[in-house]
Amino acid sequence: MSQFTVEVLVTPRPGLLDPQGKAIHHALSSLGYDAVADVRVGKAIYLEVAAASPDDAVERAEEMCRKLLANPVTEDFHVTAAAADRALP
Amino acid sequence: MSQFTVEVLVTPRPGLLDPQGKAIHHALSSLGYDAVADVRVGKAIYLEVAAASPDDAVERAEEMCRKLLANPVTEDFHVTAAAADRALP
Repeated sequence: MSQFTVEVLVTPRPGLLDPQGKAIHHALSSLGYDAVADVRVGKAIYLEVAAASPDDAVERAEEMCRKLLANPVTEDFHVTAAAADRALP
Repeated sequence: MSQFTVEVLVTPRPGLLDPQGKAIHHALSSLGYDAVADVRVGKAIYLEVAAASPDDAVERAEEMCRKLLANPVTEDFHVTAAAADRALP
């Protein structure tokens, strides 16, 4: 078993309201950033997981997403194994 | 000017406390996921930006990070232009 860093991106599903994104969009407009057409905000979760391989680490993280990390009704998730040399932030 | 989707990952700086990560780590342990050694939680922000090129879009987003999206004392940020065919989540 080795340690792997897994990156989990949890994002609001397309079409669903995203009040945090709306608030940031509004704040950017107030600062003069008119080139921004839309903002969506999700979570970036970094897990340090003991697993047999990167694929095994990703599989474990996907199970954690289904059970805890993401809300299946309102959120999508995307899991990738970070490069071995990239430590947890 | 074209539209580009830019992914901004804002993460707590190494060594700083991350209460949200601690809470998730604790919840995962309660569910029996003992293989998880550490959890850090940040924000994933997706911006749809009008810019001349992907590099220009990234540069604009980095400026937004310095001015609004990230706290320079406690957070790091990492900006990448998402693939052109990847729509905002």
